[in-house]
Amino acid sequence: MTTVDAKEQAMYRDFAQESLVPLWTQVDDLMPATPRPAAAAHVWRWARLRELAGHAGDLVPVGRGGERRAIALANPGLGGAPFATPTLWAAIQYLNPGEDAPVHRHSQHAFRFVVEGEGVWTVVDGDPVAMRRGDLLLTPGWRFHGHHNQSDTPMAWLDGLDIPFAAALDATFFEFGPDAVSDRGTPDRSRSERLWAHPGLRPVSRPERTASSPIAAYRWADTDAALADQLALETEGYPGVVEPGHAAVRFSNPTTGGDVLPTIRAELHRLRAGTLTAARREVGSAVWQVFDGSGTVQVDSRGWTIGRGDLVVVPSWAPMHLRADTDLDLFRFSDAPIFERLYADRAAPA
Amino acid sequence: MTTVDAKEQAMYRDFAQESLVPLWTQVDDLMPATPRPAAAAHVWRWARLRELAGHAGDLVPVGRGGERRAIALANPGLGGAPFATPTLWAAIQYLNPGEDAPVHRHSQHAFRFVVEGEGVWTVVDGDPVAMRRGDLLLTPGWRFHGHHNQSDTPMAWLDGLDIPFAAALDATFFEFGPDAVSDRGTPDRSRSERLWAHPGLRPVSRPERTASSPIAAYRWADTDAALADQLALETEGYPGVVEPGHAAVRFSNPTTGGDVLPTIRAELHRLRAGTLTAARREVGSAVWQVFDGSGTVQVDSRGWTIGRGDLVVVPSWAPMHLRADTDLDLFRFSDAPIFERLYADRAAPA
Amino acid sequence: MTTVDAKEQAMYRDFAQESLVPLWTQVDDLMPATPRPAAAAHVWRWARLRELAGHAGDLVPVGRGGERRAIALANPGLGGAPFATPTLWAAIQYLNPGEDAPVHRHSQHAFRFVVEGEGVWTVVDGDPVAMRRGDLLLTPGWRFHGHHNQSDTPMAWLDGLDIPFAAALDATFFEFGPDAVSDRGTPDRSRSERLWAHPGLRPVSRPERTASSPIAAYRWADTDAALADQLALETEGYPGVVEPGHAAVRFSNPTTGGDVLPTIRAELHRLRAGTLTAARREVGSAVWQVFDGSGTVQVDSRGWTIGRGDLVVVPSWAPMHLRADTDLDLFRFSDAPIFERLYADRAAPA
Amino acid sequence: MTTVDAKEQAMYRDFAQESLVPLWTQVDDLMPATPRPAAAAHVWRWARLRELAGHAGDLVPVGRGGERRAIALANPGLGGAPFATPTLWAAIQYLNPGEDAPVHRHSQHAFRFVVEGEGVWTVVDGDPVAMRRGDLLLTPGWRFHGHHNQSDTPMAWLDGLDIPFAAALDATFFEFGPDAVSDRGTPDRSRSERLWAHPGLRPVSRPERTASSPIAAYRWADTDAALADQLALETEGYPGVVEPGHAAVRFSNPTTGGDVLPTIRAELHRLRAGTLTAARREVGSAVWQVFDGSGTVQVDSRGWTIGRGDLVVVPSWAPMHLRADTDLDLFRFSDAPIFERLYADRAAPA
Repeated sequence: MTTVDAKEQAMYRDFAQESLVPLWTQVDDLMPATPRPAAAAHVWRWARLRELAGHAGDLVPVGRGGERRAIALANPGLGGAPFATPTLWAAIQYLNPGEDAPVHRHSQHAFRFVVEGEGVWTVVDGDPVAMRRGDLLLTPGWRFHGHHNQSDTPMAWLDGLDIPFAAALDATFFEFGPDAVSDRGTPDRSRSERLWAHPGLRPVSRPERTASSPIAAYRWADTDAALADQLALETEGYPGVVEPGHAAVRFSNPTTGGDVLPTIRAELHRLRAGTLTAARREVGSAVWQVFDGSGTVQVDSRGWTIGRGDLVVVPSWAPMHLRADTDLDLFRFSDAPIFERLYADRAAPA
Repeated sequence: MTTVDAKEQAMYRDFAQESLVPLWTQVDDLMPATPRPAAAAHVWRWARLRELAGHAGDLVPVGRGGERRAIALANPGLGGAPFATPTLWAAIQYLNPGEDAPVHRHSQHAFRFVVEGEGVWTVVDGDPVAMRRGDLLLTPGWRFHGHHNQSDTPMAWLDGLDIPFAAALDATFFEFGPDAVSDRGTPDRSRSERLWAHPGLRPVSRPERTASSPIAAYRWADTDAALADQLALETEGYPGVVEPGHAAVRFSNPTTGGDVLPTIRAELHRLRAGTLTAARREVGSAVWQVFDGSGTVQVDSRGWTIGRGDLVVVPSWAPMHLRADTDLDLFRFSDAPIFERLYADRAAPA
Repeated sequence: MTTVDAKEQAMYRDFAQESLVPLWTQVDDLMPATPRPAAAAHVWRWARLRELAGHAGDLVPVGRGGERRAIALANPGLGGAPFATPTLWAAIQYLNPGEDAPVHRHSQHAFRFVVEGEGVWTVVDGDPVAMRRGDLLLTPGWRFHGHHNQSDTPMAWLDGLDIPFAAALDATFFEFGPDAVSDRGTPDRSRSERLWAHPGLRPVSRPERTASSPIAAYRWADTDAALADQLALETEGYPGVVEPGHAAVRFSNPTTGGDVLPTIRAELHRLRAGTLTAARREVGSAVWQVFDGSGTVQVDSRGWTIGRGDLVVVPSWAPMHLRADTDLDLFRFSDAPIFERLYADRAAPA
Repeated sequence: MTTVDAKEQAMYRDFAQESLVPLWTQVDDLMPATPRPAAAAHVWRWARLRELAGHAGDLVPVGRGGERRAIALANPGLGGAPFATPTLWAAIQYLNPGEDAPVHRHSQHAFRFVVEGEGVWTVVDGDPVAMRRGDLLLTPGWRFHGHHNQSDTPMAWLDGLDIPFAAALDATFFEFGPDAVSDRGTPDRSRSERLWAHPGLRPVSRPERTASSPIAAYRWADTDAALADQLALETEGYPGVVEPGHAAVRFSNPTTGGDVLPTIRAELHRLRAGTLTAARREVGSAVWQVFDGSGTVQVDSRGWTIGRGDLVVVPSWAPMHLRADTDLDLFRFSDAPIFERLYADRAAPA
């Protein structure tokens, strides 16, 4: 479109006036050969997040209206929106001793992953769920939930939700519950776990398939054992790991075998010290958080050393690999179920 | 957050510097009680679209690079992007006599709906598919396709795709094919129809379930007959219509019974003259095009009279109803499969 | 087990007394290397069936108690039981002018296939369905149904059910309805067809998946056209046929794309004159009926010439092939869905 | 059919000669109002089974040809066939110290449930699986498997298979493997458990859905804990049990949430002392084995007191209830998946 004469100019003015846009001036941006995400690869440091969350803990009350003392990763490529990726929200949430985060529910699906600390219970539809280092806690959409810190120290953790995806699709519903959680009990295990967190066993009274997992908490002891078993099998010469030196488990819905939430996949990866993973790209975005150990992550042409708590955002189709300097455990969540359910998933070596 | 002292100001500066955004200042926008779409209800007039497309036909060549002479509805609420809704692309495409739209393929799913004219064949993976008034033509993702006008008059039609959705999710792949379509045959029926468009029958040689429908064209004669049958059943006192005076068929994938494309639902609605439909809202957005007759559409608090070819965009959760001044046929497409596959569909009377 | 001493004899007596049977004396019969069906390959001649059914029409009334004037193929290998195969019932049913077969319902799934004649309506849950040469009519389990002959000539047709399967599994329920059908209308098309028998279209008012097809009749004109299209595509050099000279369509459930009934597959096969099909075996049993033309069928080591109306039973895993002396159309039904749904299907060239 | 004259007699002779059977003389037996199983309710005593299996252990070698020293429950209503019900095989298998049951595979699905003892490893596709009291071991169809007793005492257990179902449907395939198991290791946990028996976790390297569960052994400690949790929840006032005083878990396939085997459901039930279960009937047959405690079972009009190891067969649609004299644990297996997958399941209070 190098020369544009008067008639054409008039036509383009008409287009604009009629709320029309021609494809031929946009096609390169709309239909690139492979994804060209606006979202950037980026790393946030846990130490700094923790420090800033502490300041917020000193200065900003938590309560009805603000709802949560959560501070979201705002991808530098996404224009200041509080979105880690176009589909995923990731935030540090912080609760002082004795504080309550008020009860509400929303259509967005949520989880919490605990990289350090304990002492908070999240109460999901009346079921108190203890939060402790290494645990993955679920709050599927439209369940009332609140949090309360029963300990004498602050606690901070990672919140993951599909807020950006729901916002992009105009599919958000929200409702306040009672200000305080109804059950202030502090049981070691939630009732959901007592019913559902037994390997390969399900209650006969609950034969249905559910959209989200009925297990409210996946405990670190189980996750750790599963990862250790995979590496031991590898040592003995048997299959199970994803690639040499790289074990990984996916948190799953025991009523279907599928992902824990309709829009979010959650996994824990363990690399032996010295492991270099194969570079790989996939459609859809992911957030990684180091749980233990240290290493290097490379996304596109950029590399970062990472350690406990650090968060890495990987945009769609960006080549990514990891190197473990020590034994290295990483939590990962992604929007993969969206693509798989819509037959749009793709992955490739990079 | 009525008073903000210096410490807080510093904290917010720190947040910004670290690419962080607090939830408590954003929660109202991010998590409204019900969807608050930026997209607006809007109507585009076919006569004007046709006129402007004709200008483009005079001034802008179609060919490799621009790919298609397509002019997209740009929702006034979406900041100038060529998106009818946050998920759906709708455009008028225009091809002069003897012209070819070059062969390409993309991961986005596409269809064409023909409100007037004939004479173009769309060639999908080598299978020429005639386009005629009332037909719905499918081009599922990643199939090579081009168009060629074999007639001596221009032809214009509606293109529908999930371009905005794929763009929002960074899931776009594109590839050029040969510049010209390989098969310039002009058969009355495509090979796909000869294999698949027989009621309740499928070829034994093709037992698989496919993500998209294998039927390349749904012909008006069939659609019209199905709608007429529903209204006749209603007259005889039997069920079948959606509500009194309102017949509707959904185009479906014969290998699954589901929607024709993984992300797009397509339907044809027929109202008897005088019918007033019940107001209703649903999660997800839709585009309607009048196929025949005239009436009124009301979306939110706005109303428009509409006639042949006019296009109406209905944002998520907006209450909507129709009134038929004459017998009124409307084509409708929406993003409903996305929500249903992710267990996020909701609908309610309004 | 060649020598059996006194202690062993006592042990075997003890087994018998305690209702016990050892595996080691039975394993060869229970667990053969490949299926060893008791059912035999066999052919029944339509002319003879028609003649005997006529005798029954003269001598045996149809009415409550006997329920149907149906005469079942009793596989010679199955000890006199009225079972074509271990899972499938096949019978000729015969109705004199003016006769009614009384209304009942049962958990067993049924269909009718019409090799000749017309004039009977089967009324399924109040919906009258015309029966004409070439049509496949469905009566899914637990639907009330009766038949009435409105013509002035007798009519005979093939009934297919899963009676032996339901009997073997003790899963049979039965209930009488009113003695006479409620709707004596004689419409050309049933209401079910008017709602559902449009290619790739389904009523928006009925979005559910159903266990059985909602189409009560698959009409010959559609089946014939689909088969003709496959052979024409083959002539033009395009895929679609099962093998050279051999077209085939499967009757399917438009709400799922699956088989018409949960336990029964139904197909129509068309061979060009001179075609010899590849010999093939599959787990599960089938019944074929010649619809038109003549040829030869070979099952295991036995061969038969077959013509219009003749019925052939093919036991599980028996090698089978066909030769068409003229253009040859055959209806086929089998128990394949049982095996596929239980992951037990197997097939192989023979 | 009260009077039968000469013509009719001739007609019935013709039917017989032509391998035909009329429906009207059979309909009462073929199509009863509700299932009329030939199989009878029956109880076998474990002490007696154990004693007779011991005799077989003294007199009958185990090895190639006989394949297994298994003694099957032969339902008194089923004419001497080694079938507990029309679909289910149940046998006591017995292995002396040092003995090997040779390696083979078959299309029939199998499990073992251990009511007492230990010391045998079953080796499934090369993976040694320890057998101990309370464990459920799976051998899905077509997996090579053998058993070897590494201890210095005999061991006996319950084998469950779908042999009668596969026999009825002529769907049996069988193949010999090497005479001796390849891996004589005696690990505490199988490799399958190390990969798969972690609650809600699955290996990322194995994303597929499988027809049968990949968990080779469900261990008593897990089952016991799940049942204890349900009863504790009941005590605390929360849902989870099937009915008052009656906890139950279903063994499930973690890749789908469905049953462990395509044709067999397996459950463990726990009744508090004094519990009387509601009488209930369901389509399909079941076998129960007392694992611990004592009580009474009532099937149809018959009642039996039962204790550890005793086996109860419940035919289709027979009303059944239990009374627990002590705390009572029972293993149960049934053919329910067959009916559910074919949409033929029914259940009702009785």
